[in-house]
Amino acid sequence: MPPKPIEPAPHAPHLALAHQLADVARTKTLRHFRTPVRVENKAVDGFDPVTVADVAAEKAMRQLLKRLAPDHGVSGEELADTVGAGRYTWVLDPIDGTRAYMAGLPLWGTLIGLVEDGKPIVGLMDQPFTGERFFGSPAGAFLTHGGQTLRLKTRGTTRLTEATLMATTPDMFKGRGERAAFGRLEATVRLRRFGGDCYAYAMLAAGHIDLVVEASLKAVDIVPLIPIIEAAGGVVSTWDGGDPLHGGRILAAANGDLHRDAQAVLLNAALS
Amino acid sequence: MPPKPIEPAPHAPHLALAHQLADVARTKTLRHFRTPVRVENKAVDGFDPVTVADVAAEKAMRQLLKRLAPDHGVSGEELADTVGAGRYTWVLDPIDGTRAYMAGLPLWGTLIGLVEDGKPIVGLMDQPFTGERFFGSPAGAFLTHGGQTLRLKTRGTTRLTEATLMATTPDMFKGRGERAAFGRLEATVRLRRFGGDCYAYAMLAAGHIDLVVEASLKAVDIVPLIPIIEAAGGVVSTWDGGDPLHGGRILAAANGDLHRDAQAVLLNAALS
Repeated sequence: MPPKPIEPAPHAPHLALAHQLADVARTKTLRHFRTPVRVENKAVDGFDPVTVADVAAEKAMRQLLKRLAPDHGVSGEELADTVGAGRYTWVLDPIDGTRAYMAGLPLWGTLIGLVEDGKPIVGLMDQPFTGERFFGSPAGAFLTHGGQTLRLKTRGTTRLTEATLMATTPDMFKGRGERAAFGRLEATVRLRRFGGDCYAYAMLAAGHIDLVVEASLKAVDIVPLIPIIEAAGGVVSTWDGGDPLHGGRILAAANGDLHRDAQAVLLNAALS
Repeated sequence: MPPKPIEPAPHAPHLALAHQLADVARTKTLRHFRTPVRVENKAVDGFDPVTVADVAAEKAMRQLLKRLAPDHGVSGEELADTVGAGRYTWVLDPIDGTRAYMAGLPLWGTLIGLVEDGKPIVGLMDQPFTGERFFGSPAGAFLTHGGQTLRLKTRGTTRLTEATLMATTPDMFKGRGERAAFGRLEATVRLRRFGGDCYAYAMLAAGHIDLVVEASLKAVDIVPLIPIIEAAGGVVSTWDGGDPLHGGRILAAANGDLHRDAQAVLLNAALS
């Protein structure tokens, strides 16, 4: 079967801008990645490489947006929101996974999303150390790595007992209800692994894992990932099936069947 | 201060052979990394990419050893041990972190160690996807990445309350004693993160984290990492301060002070 041609992208200029934003952010985030932290001085002068990199990357992205898309709004992790004159708002998280960043692990990412009239339509996750860039729009979801671009497609796993589940840390589940619900789900699946941040959602879109179930997320932690997951065939919502746009308790699944079954386990556990 | 010259390496030929072993293993492990798993067929024909890659990489390394070091013994993760005629035994784990491998995460590694008269003297951890290779011997510990070689040095953190602690998964702690001991330590440190496998020990050697505390390890999971950690300035032992050569409960620390204090917390918790 010949490869399917890539259809014209309705949001191509927006996607191109997302790539430019990732390009300016990566020089800032990489500059401080794995630099020595003088622990003994940190308490004194408050120097924290991850905060410095985070703020520098967001400032660089905001400067570019001010120049190239002055009527777009900006909602960032680090600096105050800017309301736009039009329908578009950029959602920026310069370093998602700050703890992974601090520990030297290449699982953090720069998240860049574009929301049009309340709907995430373009999303990008850049991992500058490995050189991987995952992005999605209505034209499809793709990974660029080592000069090659691959189309992303979620996995066909439909049974929970065959599924691989990821979450960043058990600490994100607060209170007995959330812990019981996650516990019920992890007892059902084939494999559960902690330690993922945005990289786990990228692996879901790429077809290597089946479920990401998290809690206590901010909007900026999930919005830029939604267009990638959806264009790859996945389903994202809150645990109770609501709009994931505001973060909170998030359930991302490789497909609709798995999403429905995982949701049933989470909700039944919470009610029992 | 001018850079310190690299002193002549007493085990240079062995280290060179370790690099050759890593080179032959990486083509085998990369070939199956992130290849699609047909979940629906796996139950039928038992095809499992990680097992295929694991066995192929170990076979390739054993063939090379048979040709270049026929009198050395070999103890591998996948195949039966070979007793050598001399003082040297190679310890091979083609894919440490099989769950990370299955989930597409670049935190697994190929572990290659050489034991001389019961003492690990050369160790290597290769991460083929990121192109990072960590290695250590009495001549020092180094990371090769992107054509550059950096000397590894553990961090100077001496207070547990400032330390970053890693472990692969909470599931590795069996029974109330181990869980209580790890729980006491994670309540003491500044930051605890799950999801590391051999990559966590590499980050400890590189000075990005301070402690790795694990349990249920096999000898092959830790032996190849010991020369890297020690040459970088770290300290590795079992929780009770014993020889880590046989695996089990492992405590690796960035320096002697931190090792002593972490050990006291683990042992006090286990006794109380």
